[in-house]
Amino acid sequence: MQTAPSEDKIPVVDSTSGPQSNGEGLYFSDGRRKVDYVLVFHQRRHGSIRSPTSTSVSHDRLSIVSNGNFPQSAGLHAAAGVGGAIPAGEAANVDEVFMELGFAGGNEPAEPADHEMHLIRQEFEANLLEAGLEIERDGESKAHGPSFTRLHAPWPVLCREAEFLKIKVPTKTSYELKEESGFGSSMSTVWQKLNQPFQPKVPQQDHGRTKFLSHCFSRDKLHLYNITSKDTFFDNATRGRVVYEILRRTVCVRTCQTIGISTLIAKGVYDAAFPLHDGDFRVDGDADDRNDRQVLHEEWARYSAFYKYQPIDLVRKYFGEKIGLYFAWLGVYTQLLIPASIVGIIVFGYGVATVDTNIPSLEMCDERLNFTMCPLCDGACDFWRLNTACGTARASHLFDNPATVFFAIFMSLWAVLFLEHWKRRQISLSFSWDLTGIEEEEEHPRPRYETILRQKRQRKQKNKKHKKKTSETAIDKLTWKDRLPGYFINVSSILFMFGLTFSAVFGVIVYRIVVSALMAMSPDPETKSNVRVTVTATAVIINLVVILILDEIYGAVALWLTELEIPKTETNFEERLILKAFLLKFMNAYAPIFYVAFFKGRFVGRPGNYVYVFNGYRMEECAPGGCLIELCIQLSIIMLGKQLIQNNIFEIGIPKLKKLVRSLKDKGSAEEEREEERPPQQWNLDYALAPFEGLTPEYMEMIIQFGFVSLFVASFPLAPLFALLNNVIEIRLDAKKFVAELRRPVAIRAKDIGIWYNILSGMGKFSVIINAFVISFTSDFIPRLVYQYMYSQTGTMHGFIDHTLSHFNVSSFKPGTAPHNSGDITLCRYKDYREPPWSPDAYQFSKQYWCVLAARLAFVILFQFMSYTAILMVAWGIPDVPKTIMQQLKREKKLLVDVFLREEKEKFQLIQSLFAKDTTHQQPGSKRPHAGQGFAVPGRYSTLPPGPTQASSGDGGGGQRARCRAASFSQVTRKTLPTNENENSKHTASELPF
Amino acid sequence: MQTAPSEDKIPVVDSTSGPQSNGEGLYFSDGRRKVDYVLVFHQRRHGSIRSPTSTSVSHDRLSIVSNGNFPQSAGLHAAAGVGGAIPAGEAANVDEVFMELGFAGGNEPAEPADHEMHLIRQEFEANLLEAGLEIERDGESKAHGPSFTRLHAPWPVLCREAEFLKIKVPTKTSYELKEESGFGSSMSTVWQKLNQPFQPKVPQQDHGRTKFLSHCFSRDKLHLYNITSKDTFFDNATRGRVVYEILRRTVCVRTCQTIGISTLIAKGVYDAAFPLHDGDFRVDGDADDRNDRQVLHEEWARYSAFYKYQPIDLVRKYFGEKIGLYFAWLGVYTQLLIPASIVGIIVFGYGVATVDTNIPSLEMCDERLNFTMCPLCDGACDFWRLNTACGTARASHLFDNPATVFFAIFMSLWAVLFLEHWKRRQISLSFSWDLTGIEEEEEHPRPRYETILRQKRQRKQKNKKHKKKTSETAIDKLTWKDRLPGYFINVSSILFMFGLTFSAVFGVIVYRIVVSALMAMSPDPETKSNVRVTVTATAVIINLVVILILDEIYGAVALWLTELEIPKTETNFEERLILKAFLLKFMNAYAPIFYVAFFKGRFVGRPGNYVYVFNGYRMEECAPGGCLIELCIQLSIIMLGKQLIQNNIFEIGIPKLKKLVRSLKDKGSAEEEREEERPPQQWNLDYALAPFEGLTPEYMEMIIQFGFVSLFVASFPLAPLFALLNNVIEIRLDAKKFVAELRRPVAIRAKDIGIWYNILSGMGKFSVIINAFVISFTSDFIPRLVYQYMYSQTGTMHGFIDHTLSHFNVSSFKPGTAPHNSGDITLCRYKDYREPPWSPDAYQFSKQYWCVLAARLAFVILFQFMSYTAILMVAWGIPDVPKTIMQQLKREKKLLVDVFLREEKEKFQLIQSLFAKDTTHQQPGSKRPHAGQGFAVPGRYSTLPPGPTQASSGDGGGGQRARCRAASFSQVTRKTLPTNENENSKHTASELPF
Repeated sequence: MQTAPSEDKIPVVDSTSGPQSNGEGLYFSDGRRKVDYVLVFHQRRHGSIRSPTSTSVSHDRLSIVSNGNFPQSAGLHAAAGVGGAIPAGEAANVDEVFMELGFAGGNEPAEPADHEMHLIRQEFEANLLEAGLEIERDGESKAHGPSFTRLHAPWPVLCREAEFLKIKVPTKTSYELKEESGFGSSMSTVWQKLNQPFQPKVPQQDHGRTKFLSHCFSRDKLHLYNITSKDTFFDNATRGRVVYEILRRTVCVRTCQTIGISTLIAKGVYDAAFPLHDGDFRVDGDADDRNDRQVLHEEWARYSAFYKYQPIDLVRKYFGEKIGLYFAWLGVYTQLLIPASIVGIIVFGYGVATVDTNIPSLEMCDERLNFTMCPLCDGACDFWRLNTACGTARASHLFDNPATVFFAIFMSLWAVLFLEHWKRRQISLSFSWDLTGIEEEEEHPRPRYETILRQKRQRKQKNKKHKKKTSETAIDKLTWKDRLPGYFINVSSILFMFGLTFSAVFGVIVYRIVVSALMAMSPDPETKSNVRVTVTATAVIINLVVILILDEIYGAVALWLTELEIPKTETNFEERLILKAFLLKFMNAYAPIFYVAFFKGRFVGRPGNYVYVFNGYRMEECAPGGCLIELCIQLSIIMLGKQLIQNNIFEIGIPKLKKLVRSLKDKGSAEEEREEERPPQQWNLDYALAPFEGLTPEYMEMIIQFGFVSLFVASFPLAPLFALLNNVIEIRLDAKKFVAELRRPVAIRAKDIGIWYNILSGMGKFSVIINAFVISFTSDFIPRLVYQYMYSQTGTMHGFIDHTLSHFNVSSFKPGTAPHNSGDITLCRYKDYREPPWSPDAYQFSKQYWCVLAARLAFVILFQFMSYTAILMVAWGIPDVPKTIMQQLKREKKLLVDVFLREEKEKFQLIQSLFAKDTTHQQPGSKRPHAGQGFAVPGRYSTLPPGPTQASSGDGGGGQRARCRAASFSQVTRKTLPTNENENSKHTASELPF
Repeated sequence: MQTAPSEDKIPVVDSTSGPQSNGEGLYFSDGRRKVDYVLVFHQRRHGSIRSPTSTSVSHDRLSIVSNGNFPQSAGLHAAAGVGGAIPAGEAANVDEVFMELGFAGGNEPAEPADHEMHLIRQEFEANLLEAGLEIERDGESKAHGPSFTRLHAPWPVLCREAEFLKIKVPTKTSYELKEESGFGSSMSTVWQKLNQPFQPKVPQQDHGRTKFLSHCFSRDKLHLYNITSKDTFFDNATRGRVVYEILRRTVCVRTCQTIGISTLIAKGVYDAAFPLHDGDFRVDGDADDRNDRQVLHEEWARYSAFYKYQPIDLVRKYFGEKIGLYFAWLGVYTQLLIPASIVGIIVFGYGVATVDTNIPSLEMCDERLNFTMCPLCDGACDFWRLNTACGTARASHLFDNPATVFFAIFMSLWAVLFLEHWKRRQISLSFSWDLTGIEEEEEHPRPRYETILRQKRQRKQKNKKHKKKTSETAIDKLTWKDRLPGYFINVSSILFMFGLTFSAVFGVIVYRIVVSALMAMSPDPETKSNVRVTVTATAVIINLVVILILDEIYGAVALWLTELEIPKTETNFEERLILKAFLLKFMNAYAPIFYVAFFKGRFVGRPGNYVYVFNGYRMEECAPGGCLIELCIQLSIIMLGKQLIQNNIFEIGIPKLKKLVRSLKDKGSAEEEREEERPPQQWNLDYALAPFEGLTPEYMEMIIQFGFVSLFVASFPLAPLFALLNNVIEIRLDAKKFVAELRRPVAIRAKDIGIWYNILSGMGKFSVIINAFVISFTSDFIPRLVYQYMYSQTGTMHGFIDHTLSHFNVSSFKPGTAPHNSGDITLCRYKDYREPPWSPDAYQFSKQYWCVLAARLAFVILFQFMSYTAILMVAWGIPDVPKTIMQQLKREKKLLVDVFLREEKEKFQLIQSLFAKDTTHQQPGSKRPHAGQGFAVPGRYSTLPPGPTQASSGDGGGGQRARCRAASFSQVTRKTLPTNENENSKHTASELPF
């Protein structure tokens, strides 16, 4: 009854027919067993000089070998011979393999290293066989080039591993999700209609509003699961993961003392190990029966789909949870950038709209207000009129207006809302992806760690031998002593990198000071008038280039430094790498921005007492319109430049170039192999792709961008907009890369995005502080407020410019610093709050200065307090777990308990029918002495009359024991059930083995 | 072989012999089955008028009824009759019970309500029986008074529930903890020696350095666990929990539609339900064989043990994890108060030591510096000399010195260290208590919620009937609409409470202002000189009394308000209650302190322009020594007073009083019952104790104390010391209460201390802000710094007092406010930074004012930044999970996997021997057609030659299936094993049922 459909599901190798035409090479040569994983090693040239017998033997047939679970070589023959239930072919194969391997490998006249590798491969693959995997090797016809070992995980292995890995699978039990009623329902219908064009066309996996309960896979409970076909019950990603799990923990004791495939790859025993893609990603003609990769390529990994939602469930199904979470996160981030961009545009629009009514900028541009400003450089520069800086004042207002304060608070809230929203989404996803309650997996040490550890052991042993024979103390880990040099190099390198970054920033500052001084001295008035623009623009571009270069260098350095630390596990490694890389890259990207925001123009001194650097160069000042406009320019150019260049050149250009080079190279070498080559198999195609190298760079790029969007957003309200534009492209770019340009990564389970969340949340909090300081210290918001409410006579901003400019008596200029042709000017103005020359303590900070400073500091405290309170409220008000999910979780738990309780009841019923039979052909009395042994003491209950039969006398003992045994009988029936699924348990009773 | 020891373990009821003499009443009357839980209801007087038959029948014997698991009334008889394995007595009892219940209850001429309750009890207890519990009832001889229903959970029920509850139990597998070697080892030995006198003398449960692996209980894996006796495998607390779990979910459908015992208690069907204590807590004579309660009483719950560690493991074993965690937390808190107290004493000592060299206080006391101060009140008061305030200045220095700043930072760090330390301890505990990975349990709605919901349903149905017949929509929850009135009352009440608190504070302020004004006007010079002392002291005491009264009121109000909100579950209720109670009590305790710290003396105005409240009362000023000394007085009196009074009177006195009253009352009523009373059973004794009412008050008290220790610690460095002294007593007080004065609480599993941790951590963070403001605004630390570094000519503090006092021209006094006899004084001084009378803008805030303000604000920012950075570093540097625990966890996981893998291998070996037998008496071919049905398609693998036997042909089908079946066989053997434990699995094969 079940045979027919399951037959249908097993794909037959037919290299010409329809949907599977691209799937050639997805199966073993029997066309049935799926290739779940591929190991690749390079056959060296000399491999062709092999004994003719072995070549001919293995040339004729592909050596397919397979195995069950945990055979022990000793007992295996007996079992195979006597039991008859384990297929003899399977059992016997193990030794055959051993023989074959020994035969093929042992006689080889290979170089020692090469030969050794062959032995290692032999042992490793034999161990894989023992772990139950099935192996297919390439015919050994190829003298050189990549050689593929294909692995298949049969059903029992999948079951075993799924149980170990606690993989959750859907059960037969389903429940209906609650329909919304009334207004909510019609709203959601309308919403769905509206959303329709944005939904990717992906074959629906959910059955309307029905949700299937899922439960950790257990072989004891096979009857619970909805197993339609054993070949497709576990999807390809899961199969890959299962095989990877085995590869990861398979040991290699005899030939090399290591564990896991990654060590072997590191040793060069294998070149690569990867699961196969689902076939070609190009669709030819018939679009109805696309494989997952094709669907992803069509509906997700193309720019024309930029407006659509991502098919996250499919991404997760294909690439695993970790990558699924990355794209989900990127999606949420991009979505939430939309409102931020809109608000940013509005804020910017407000600036544009009010620029003509803004009193301070009007006053600055007003030619009638005749402010004579002190010269910008010593000697060469002349006094200047403030209204010449009218342009920057107007531009400054675009970004430095009250709406910006609102925007800064908004963006602080936005950041926390984003994080909260993501938390909820993450939990929703981990619920619908059945990740709730997964535990961290035990990890094996990294290859490098093992190597160092072995070296240490050997060194210790050698030392011991030199001294005397003592009892061997096992060295089982590296201590801080072993890592000391690493740490030392780490700290010093990081300090050096910091120094490098700072000196780069400082270099640009010096460049700016020197060039502007030189240009100011130039006689050409054209040059003079363009000083600021030219200097700023060139300096920022230099900054950008430095950042881009250092960014690449720091990435490599962080990797190198992390290797030096010898972290034990891969997770450990990743975490340390991320931290270091983040620290360095963050520093690199933000150091010049921090300089402009908080330090530029603050150490200028005052006329007559300027601060000089080197010999005679004055520290640079901010533009007359305020420092914020400079910050804005700096930020926008670095952000845009970084995104454009990194996205276009590094992410698109360089891979294209690499591909070109590779294909050119291949063309040369491919020529000679052409004649004997079949059409390339999927593993050949996949091997040609670039390996997957982790999500760290992808995340890192986005995190740095998040910094631009949140940290200094007060100075550049358009940042979210540019981030949005970038990300819309970024999603598809990354998608393309994963679908078409990378080997399929192993599906890794992950509950969350890990350390990135902490970094994001830390940045969100940090951004509050930064924005508070930007608004209060970099912008003119506070001085304006103080003026309006404390000093203004009319309560308006009229006279603000006058108020911010202090007076300077030209006669106080130090000799040689006064302008050459000062004319009849006796007083000039400069931007600062200082006592006028006629005050008793002239040029000291005035009362206004302290007042404004107090106001600024108070604003920082207030802003922080308000923002953090708002953040706290939002974080507290939005529950981490969405209510619907919470309800569903509860419901599922209840249903699951119900299922088990029902099962328990059924068991009980079964016992009764069983015992009815049991008594007919077996006297329970025959087992009495044994049953009574433990607990049943007849007549123990003095208050109870002895039971009518002997069996009832011990309540806690015999009876209960019998019940216990009965329960296990029922479990037997349960366990025999799964092979003939959907059958009623009543029927099975007759087929029990007694 | 196993019989003898297990016999020994089962305690025999012998009311005279040794250790169990106090344990009378711990068992059913058969002396074997432990009483795990007791339900109590009150027999009404009229119960005595019952039909003579029923009385006589049940008088003669205690009705013991018991049951197995999930019998279905229909199938039960058959099973009992045919199988013979289920004791007939047990099975038959169910109906007997139904009959008996019907008989005893049905004929009763009771009042309707009473009768109904009887029926409910009948049904409920019948359902308990059905769930497998065993019940013993009191003989119905007693006409009135409490009637006890005792419950016992037999082994199968314990097993089933333990599996559901995922209770972790120790397995047989053990491993050695690593010995430290070298220096560490000898250090730890020394430490252990030193620690010896502080360790409580508790029977050790751990076996040296051996730790047993633990695993969730599963009936499938009984052979894994170390079951020495089924009676003691689950300890008493666990048994109680299991029974409670059943009580909680047992439904009562026929007679009343509710779930769980708590509803029934709320309805008054039962009076109480509690697990039994382990016996009397008093030890008489022989101290060797103490029960847990006695050990706890001897080693933990007595004041003389105050210097000892708490036997936390035993506390947890006896009271469950939740209470264990409370005491562990209290212990950690108290321990960590020791260093804080020491540092506090040192800081205070520094103040004492430097008081004679402190320049500002010396200057204030210096009579030569002739500062004439402006009068403290209008008219009546005279000018005064500053050196008369010498005393407060010196006292002020004790608390307001640079060391205080250090102490504030130290305490911020201390708070975070405490929390981090607790986190680690919590994780260590949850590891050693096997709580890792427990999940939240599903909770049933609270009784009140259910009642309201039912009322709503009925109302809805009635409305429906009134209108027309429509399809019934199920109302399954309360919406916000139902809760609206509750919320409304909540918000308004809380606002009202806030108002109440503030008006109380304000009342005290008014009292202070008025009384001091009146006293100042009094002609008696004695009165005049004592104004400040008298007013402050009386005001604080009034404050204290108000706080104590409102504290009690708010506790009750919070409970009432939370009830109004109709929270769905108990957890929900608790959380809301805690939040509300915390908010109100926090407000109440801290409002006066906040006032003194941040508002007192800040709205005084200035001479000539004072701020007046009511008609003519000037706002109060701080003492001349600064506001900090007032804050210190306020804080210390409230803290000490609250602790002393609440601890002594409320926690010791009132319970004693209640007990006295109860015993007096009982004496009266006991007389008449004396003749027929046996010596009181344990359940009588326990019923006489007060019920356990949750840990909220205990935690709340400590949290408020934590506030005193952390929030304003900058003003009172001795706070930790007083807290320490209080807590040393508090621990023993609480312990006494739990051991001797309360009924045993149900052991509740809890992984952590829940919301309290969040409150603590929030307070820790809040304390940084508060301390920053206290130091910068309340203390004189910043003005002193500013003076020293900006204004002092010599760089010392000389002249500071002069600098802080502004000048006032006496002629500017408003008419009538000047002192009556001003003499020849023209200028007086007052404490403020204002321009002198001769300045152009006289009496405006001076530049110094703004400068000091900016410095204060900057300090707040700096202090916060430093503290938070330090906190972050500490929190980040200290891993939440201790390294050793992490390693052990990993090791355990690995061991567990090993155990299971070994099991799997053993299974496989067993299969072989089984199949050897299987084939001899049963042809596998006979099941062929069935086995092949699902998957085995003979000849499916075209590349493989057909196997030698038929059975081997289908690799994925038949063979695998056979293996699967064999696996279940092995499970059968496994499951029959546990009853004859420690037996080798090889032996059992012969005893299999086929």
